[in-house]
Amino acid sequence: MRILVLGGDGYLGWPVALHLSRAGHDVGVVDSFVRRQYDHEMGVDSLVPICSLRQRVRTWEAVSGHQIEVFTGDLTDAEFVDQTFARFGPEAVVHFAEQRSAPYSMIDRKHAVYTQVNNVVGTLNLLYAIAEHDPSIHLVKLGTMGEYGTPNIDIEEGFIEITHKGRTDVLPYPKQPGSFYHLSKVHDSHNIQFGCRIWGLRATDLNQGIVYGQETGETVLHPDLATRFDYDGVFGTVLNRFCVQAVVGHPLTVYGKGGQTRGMLDIRDTLACVELAVLNPPAEGEYRVFNQFTESFSVQQMAEMVAEAFPGAVRIEHLEDPRVEKEEHYYRAAHTKLLDLGLVPHLLEPSTIRGLLAVVDRHRDRVDFSAIEPTVHWRRTASRLATTGGLVAG
Amino acid sequence: MRILVLGGDGYLGWPVALHLSRAGHDVGVVDSFVRRQYDHEMGVDSLVPICSLRQRVRTWEAVSGHQIEVFTGDLTDAEFVDQTFARFGPEAVVHFAEQRSAPYSMIDRKHAVYTQVNNVVGTLNLLYAIAEHDPSIHLVKLGTMGEYGTPNIDIEEGFIEITHKGRTDVLPYPKQPGSFYHLSKVHDSHNIQFGCRIWGLRATDLNQGIVYGQETGETVLHPDLATRFDYDGVFGTVLNRFCVQAVVGHPLTVYGKGGQTRGMLDIRDTLACVELAVLNPPAEGEYRVFNQFTESFSVQQMAEMVAEAFPGAVRIEHLEDPRVEKEEHYYRAAHTKLLDLGLVPHLLEPSTIRGLLAVVDRHRDRVDFSAIEPTVHWRRTASRLATTGGLVAG
Repeated sequence: MRILVLGGDGYLGWPVALHLSRAGHDVGVVDSFVRRQYDHEMGVDSLVPICSLRQRVRTWEAVSGHQIEVFTGDLTDAEFVDQTFARFGPEAVVHFAEQRSAPYSMIDRKHAVYTQVNNVVGTLNLLYAIAEHDPSIHLVKLGTMGEYGTPNIDIEEGFIEITHKGRTDVLPYPKQPGSFYHLSKVHDSHNIQFGCRIWGLRATDLNQGIVYGQETGETVLHPDLATRFDYDGVFGTVLNRFCVQAVVGHPLTVYGKGGQTRGMLDIRDTLACVELAVLNPPAEGEYRVFNQFTESFSVQQMAEMVAEAFPGAVRIEHLEDPRVEKEEHYYRAAHTKLLDLGLVPHLLEPSTIRGLLAVVDRHRDRVDFSAIEPTVHWRRTASRLATTGGLVAG
Repeated sequence: MRILVLGGDGYLGWPVALHLSRAGHDVGVVDSFVRRQYDHEMGVDSLVPICSLRQRVRTWEAVSGHQIEVFTGDLTDAEFVDQTFARFGPEAVVHFAEQRSAPYSMIDRKHAVYTQVNNVVGTLNLLYAIAEHDPSIHLVKLGTMGEYGTPNIDIEEGFIEITHKGRTDVLPYPKQPGSFYHLSKVHDSHNIQFGCRIWGLRATDLNQGIVYGQETGETVLHPDLATRFDYDGVFGTVLNRFCVQAVVGHPLTVYGKGGQTRGMLDIRDTLACVELAVLNPPAEGEYRVFNQFTESFSVQQMAEMVAEAFPGAVRIEHLEDPRVEKEEHYYRAAHTKLLDLGLVPHLLEPSTIRGLLAVVDRHRDRVDFSAIEPTVHWRRTASRLATTGGLVAG
């Protein structure tokens, strides 16, 4: 299949592109490199050094014999999207190309507006491009489990059957997102569902949990193929951050009580899930939602698992929660649809964590302590970042 | 009270500003005049001639003795919003300042993107301005009953209690909006609810039905105070359009089977509802939703009511529905919260329709027949407009 990976230079986009390329698909990668620009803006960097996309693609061809075509541009540029579709002629589009950090979206007004405009307009342009070029192109869109928030009932996969006053309907699952970033994904979900309804598009919305891990079957083939690994307070994901903290002797920082429970998955399962979605497209006009995670843990549980797996002493510290969220809550979310398609999960075992700790240990000299603390506070309308000192412009 | 009316030069914003001014409030009006620009872009005009805002305000002062302060600018300009708040110091903000036409948002990609960016960014800027100036300022936001779509269960006011697998929670009512415009209002609703949650803002989301009527207790005091009356295929609302069609001898154009049922209200009830919301603010941190309509009718019923009220012969014509919507469906929506606050509705009676027909008759020589037909088709990604002939730029 001909597959375009949007955001194919990012943490997950790049290994997904490699995985699909190795599986024999014709892969094109679209990226604007704005993710690398955020690093400069925030004054942080990936713990694991990453090559330029140009070098990555060159090394991949040398290692695998497969070519990956590169398209440089931004999805908010409709003309660029149009030309890319015309040139590449995709059968499926995997869409990672959004600003994906909740804290980044909560820095201040400019970053909130940037995040929503960037994500919503990019996806709107994509919907129009698909409808105009070929409505049968399958859109595989990365959403987030954070779209649901933490309701006091079970979370289902996108839709819920509601019986109310003697009548029954299956309706979109109510959304209670917890940041302007998460809100942008909710907006996308509504827009995509509408595109399917009016133009007969076919779309899969992957409501992904929090991803951990850095090595995949393809990235380990050569150091040039490594994907990024973020541990900073703005772009770092929680388990990756805990591993860095353990290795450098920093307390594991749990925000609030730590009862916040989230769906999680191994980076290798992200690749498998995207591939399963691509290989099993929905019907014409169908908007479907898969909850893409394999296990749920509370933040406190994760901290304890890292502390246990780490050979040395580890202290767990509770900070005041910079976010506005429930620190203890019910959490039970369905995630059977990808299992039904054949997903065999990599579960979070001590050996997984030890593998992560080993990755971190190799790059421990690159850790910037000042980047770890949370500096973006949900209750404020503007936060100052530790790593930049002065002004952050959106 | 000091009340800012955003979009105060529009169909409803202007009469609301007059109504609140007459009730003794200090009223400021904010407008960018982009609504008048849409008229030029579409090649259409209000059936009833309207004065410039400058003249309107001058006449209002002469007639009533009340001053209305005018702020000219756009909500997407955060600096303008900030300065306006600093100068006026509102206690409540009534927000009509959005692109409000479903067909306009469906013209093509540019108009869809424009509508969502304009509406979402304007409202985001407003949330930040309120949070930064004074979180106790009450935001009264115009939403739409169209946010709910047409589910097969009863529609509640913003939230619904769901019992699922033995557990119960009250969650946001699931949304199934039917155009990129309606989607923008859903995005707003989610963003506003989040603003209340994290910053303790207080907001009332008025999910308004389709408004009919042109005269209010204040606009009839002088011809200069008239508000606009739209009958064209893009901005015209259905009952107003039927009245124009009846008067000029054009068939009443029902889209599809006409079983589409919608909540409706008299323009005078819009004024009363907004005033009730302003006078009864929610608690700190509360996001509440009122369904702002008084009766439900199907499009076919409305056509028949106009045909019956009109003294001459009227033909009802069924056109292919340019929208993607259910042409027959269940519809039962709660609307008790405004009644509980004291709303006494003006119901849609033959005398109401005859009043509307009289307004139209006075201006029948201004009707542009070419503006009536629907020219925006939901199933297409780009529609050409009858009134502009050539290109429409977004």
